[in-house]
Amino acid sequence: MELIKQNSPVLFFFNPSKKWLVKISKKEALHTHIGILKHADAIGKEYGSKIITNKDKYVYLLKPTMYDYIMKIQHGTQIVYPKDLGYIVARAGIQNNQKIVEIGTGSASLTSFVASIVKPRGHVYTFDVDENFMKIAAKNLKKCGMEKYVTQQNLDIKTVKKVPLTDADVALIDLGDPWTVVPQVRQMLKGSGAVFAICPTMNQLEKLTMALVENEFTDIESTEHILRTIDAREGKTRHSFQGIGHTTYLCFARKAFFDRKSKNKSESEGKKEPTEKPKKITKKPVKKPAKKTLTKTKIKSSSSK
Amino acid sequence: MELIKQNSPVLFFFNPSKKWLVKISKKEALHTHIGILKHADAIGKEYGSKIITNKDKYVYLLKPTMYDYIMKIQHGTQIVYPKDLGYIVARAGIQNNQKIVEIGTGSASLTSFVASIVKPRGHVYTFDVDENFMKIAAKNLKKCGMEKYVTQQNLDIKTVKKVPLTDADVALIDLGDPWTVVPQVRQMLKGSGAVFAICPTMNQLEKLTMALVENEFTDIESTEHILRTIDAREGKTRHSFQGIGHTTYLCFARKAFFDRKSKNKSESEGKKEPTEKPKKITKKPVKKPAKKTLTKTKIKSSSSK
Amino acid sequence: MELIKQNSPVLFFFNPSKKWLVKISKKEALHTHIGILKHADAIGKEYGSKIITNKDKYVYLLKPTMYDYIMKIQHGTQIVYPKDLGYIVARAGIQNNQKIVEIGTGSASLTSFVASIVKPRGHVYTFDVDENFMKIAAKNLKKCGMEKYVTQQNLDIKTVKKVPLTDADVALIDLGDPWTVVPQVRQMLKGSGAVFAICPTMNQLEKLTMALVENEFTDIESTEHILRTIDAREGKTRHSFQGIGHTTYLCFARKAFFDRKSKNKSESEGKKEPTEKPKKITKKPVKKPAKKTLTKTKIKSSSSK
Amino acid sequence: MELIKQNSPVLFFFNPSKKWLVKISKKEALHTHIGILKHADAIGKEYGSKIITNKDKYVYLLKPTMYDYIMKIQHGTQIVYPKDLGYIVARAGIQNNQKIVEIGTGSASLTSFVASIVKPRGHVYTFDVDENFMKIAAKNLKKCGMEKYVTQQNLDIKTVKKVPLTDADVALIDLGDPWTVVPQVRQMLKGSGAVFAICPTMNQLEKLTMALVENEFTDIESTEHILRTIDAREGKTRHSFQGIGHTTYLCFARKAFFDRKSKNKSESEGKKEPTEKPKKITKKPVKKPAKKTLTKTKIKSSSSK
Repeated sequence: MELIKQNSPVLFFFNPSKKWLVKISKKEALHTHIGILKHADAIGKEYGSKIITNKDKYVYLLKPTMYDYIMKIQHGTQIVYPKDLGYIVARAGIQNNQKIVEIGTGSASLTSFVASIVKPRGHVYTFDVDENFMKIAAKNLKKCGMEKYVTQQNLDIKTVKKVPLTDADVALIDLGDPWTVVPQVRQMLKGSGAVFAICPTMNQLEKLTMALVENEFTDIESTEHILRTIDAREGKTRHSFQGIGHTTYLCFARKAFFDRKSKNKSESEGKKEPTEKPKKITKKPVKKPAKKTLTKTKIKSSSSK
Repeated sequence: MELIKQNSPVLFFFNPSKKWLVKISKKEALHTHIGILKHADAIGKEYGSKIITNKDKYVYLLKPTMYDYIMKIQHGTQIVYPKDLGYIVARAGIQNNQKIVEIGTGSASLTSFVASIVKPRGHVYTFDVDENFMKIAAKNLKKCGMEKYVTQQNLDIKTVKKVPLTDADVALIDLGDPWTVVPQVRQMLKGSGAVFAICPTMNQLEKLTMALVENEFTDIESTEHILRTIDAREGKTRHSFQGIGHTTYLCFARKAFFDRKSKNKSESEGKKEPTEKPKKITKKPVKKPAKKTLTKTKIKSSSSK
Repeated sequence: MELIKQNSPVLFFFNPSKKWLVKISKKEALHTHIGILKHADAIGKEYGSKIITNKDKYVYLLKPTMYDYIMKIQHGTQIVYPKDLGYIVARAGIQNNQKIVEIGTGSASLTSFVASIVKPRGHVYTFDVDENFMKIAAKNLKKCGMEKYVTQQNLDIKTVKKVPLTDADVALIDLGDPWTVVPQVRQMLKGSGAVFAICPTMNQLEKLTMALVENEFTDIESTEHILRTIDAREGKTRHSFQGIGHTTYLCFARKAFFDRKSKNKSESEGKKEPTEKPKKITKKPVKKPAKKTLTKTKIKSSSSK
Repeated sequence: MELIKQNSPVLFFFNPSKKWLVKISKKEALHTHIGILKHADAIGKEYGSKIITNKDKYVYLLKPTMYDYIMKIQHGTQIVYPKDLGYIVARAGIQNNQKIVEIGTGSASLTSFVASIVKPRGHVYTFDVDENFMKIAAKNLKKCGMEKYVTQQNLDIKTVKKVPLTDADVALIDLGDPWTVVPQVRQMLKGSGAVFAICPTMNQLEKLTMALVENEFTDIESTEHILRTIDAREGKTRHSFQGIGHTTYLCFARKAFFDRKSKNKSESEGKKEPTEKPKKITKKPVKKPAKKTLTKTKIKSSSSK
């Protein structure tokens, strides 16, 4: 049995919309609409127990999960919601021990969740260019205990000469213009490695998809995830009246080797694949044409509207 | 770089609806509508590379993820889909190192996915009463390499005298009548531990919710997850015409201690919580009244229609 | 061209969430956050024109449609929303010239909309038992000019001895317990006539469906209608962040003649349908057993599957 | 009571996916999987009655509604579905007696439904340029008895010098490039009149919205309508497993007078609206600049935000 002590993290839970995430500190108290919550009252109790406020309201002492941290995260930007976090992990097959790269740390909601899955041996390398967000992210990572499993760096992946790492299992992109980093992401990924991008607009999905095809990704899938809550009550079960709005779209793909150059070559040779040296042939087209590619994508896409 | 060799798992990927999951075996070949796929052609190639069929079609050699295993799982029952698997992990905060109990193994899609998250130090204990499903499940667990992290047992949790384990972080229920095992699930969980039930009907959500309240669970949430795919194409982006149907509803809750008995007691004592021995007071009401409770739930619920 | 004059109805439209429905009255003015809207400014202008407030904001003078009336209706109860109103008309094939019966007038949103479709020769007969709602409904019907096409009556259809009308094309039910009036609704409908019920909970759909089967309705269909709004903006098109919540479920069916009695008879006669007198045979079982039926539904509802 | 006779339209209804729409013809019979349906068996029966096939299956004789005609329509193109038809009528406030213009007749599903609402005194004027579709449409209109209320014309509205009609209450556009006819549609509409466009892609919504703003429409709203069916069965109520896919998006707007020209003028006059002659001022800018406008939309669409 796990008892709450000084410095234990606790979610004071009154109801789904009234809950407070704290670190227990003997002398502190939380003043709320439902009364005063004295930290000291929680000490020595088992997680799941309740305390009573001075207004006679029961508050449960829950052990915070990554979900609770994310829903209470301090965010300067839009966070990635659990419904989307979950699908990212399930679709990309993220597991402990993996090496993850993330472009665009934001408030670190995605970073934290993914770190909680790949730890203790896996690691998340996350890049951002905004010092303010980086500070918020660092604070958030620390709060949920994930800072050891994450390396934050101020680096603009779009313009980087040499990518800071390779052989990543999964790459995550959370930028306004995700298509601009596809060539770099490709270089950082293992063969067959997955990429996931957070795309709030349909236009981003469209441009990104074009860039992914151009940069030899396959199994490309764009999705939208709708979570509806249900009020299950005796004799009165129905969906909740409370609305659900848009959060974001997601775009997934896996790195492949299209061997375009070799294909052209091989055309004159009767379509035989030069299987003896797949590496050189496949690696080269990635680095350079990829950059041209992007330019092309831009030109095309602007004329397409 | 990871090269494919004899016995490597490979997903032959032609397109999202034409893909084959195999273990490479030098002398085998797969006869498909798009031509013959010779396993030998894959050997020595990097994951992500392609091979060409005798009908001149390109097939990519992807490294199977847990998603691929689950979507190709042999199932005697309805599987749990990735959109739901992901939310279960995200909402319950499942991480490596946890102890998970599952009632109703089914085809082991949920079992496998959760095992992939809690491994290598965590463990899934799964119970079923159908020998046939248990065999299918064992086969599926082996295929995706999760058998070491899972203990399967033929045990009817509903009628068990003594629960086979305690202190689980998360309990998963995939039964037609999930409400019948709520008291046992409660005994197996840690304080504040989470339960998730797979409920294909609204009626199950309703009965289960009543049983959860009766058995002192809090933060109860019923949800439905809709995944829509989007065809992102230049100048023609829209949702896919291909439909999305119902899979299941999900019900989540966390174990709390309502201290009902103590509350009655304490009423005469001026509402002071007997905080000195929370264990005995809270544990006892669980075992026995819980069983009565269920009977009540049944009676009530039948009359409620 | 239609010019606005004294007493013309006008929708002052600033944006989708700031709009006011008025009847022009020379000396009136509307004081709003965006400034003062003088009715007099609208007089003599064409519908679609704009006026300017004293805060220099443009407000368009739209001609109110039934949609505008319904969205601005005074309601003591939940209104039926346009997405549902539209489907009711489209699924039931409501057209002008039809005879419609409605049980449960509520705020008359459904009444008004249906009247606007069946007018000028069709008619809506609507029944309620709550005098207060009936007054609100009468006011709302008058406001949108539909009072001539609607007959309101204070009558409890559940307990009525003789139904007040027959040969209705379509029956609409908006009650908490819609299943209780199915036998009466059946008597009021033409053969093949449609019934639509507004059901806010899944439990209502379930009970109503059982009563519809028991009372010889066919083509039974339960649906839910989700309207999502899209922010279509250059380069930034996406679903709206603003949520969409639950409003109601709908249940549709058409009156058939199952000839259960005749079937029993005919069983001894080698299953020949006594086609020579379909009327008597079919009508009789409706009136009386229908009442028993409901009781039966409750008791042996398990046999109805 | 309405009895079925020679030439009566009948929907032979076995279940929601097995139903046949026929005109009764004494000597005909329909050969189906569930047996032979003899038309003669239906003659003399009341709508709602049943007949029995030679395979002992019951088939109900329903009276076809506009819904049945539309779902059974012969279509060379994608039809507009009832969920969307209904919303169009409800949102635009379509009623009998109105004058409707439609650009792009297609298979006439929308045409037929709208005609069924505006008849007998209202009228639909529909334009198309494809002779083949026009023939299919004519046949479909005749089948559901709407041909008297519809005027079909082979005319390319995009390039027309003079619009064929004015003062329409509502305009419907079902073209691949709906934005190209917005200036013409504007000329055909009354002030405050509504336009609805059927847009299968997000890109169309985006371009159309820009053209609508440019052409002085207000209350612009893009929506998507999702219909989910529910299997309501005793103790097993849930959404249907059968999927629901994308059909189309809808774009609505109302004609306003922005008075851009007058605004420029009035700027030098201290923002007084020249309210004394709103007609001339507002009408003129419509016709000519509207054409230029479109060109502008294409070139400098970025400035339209």
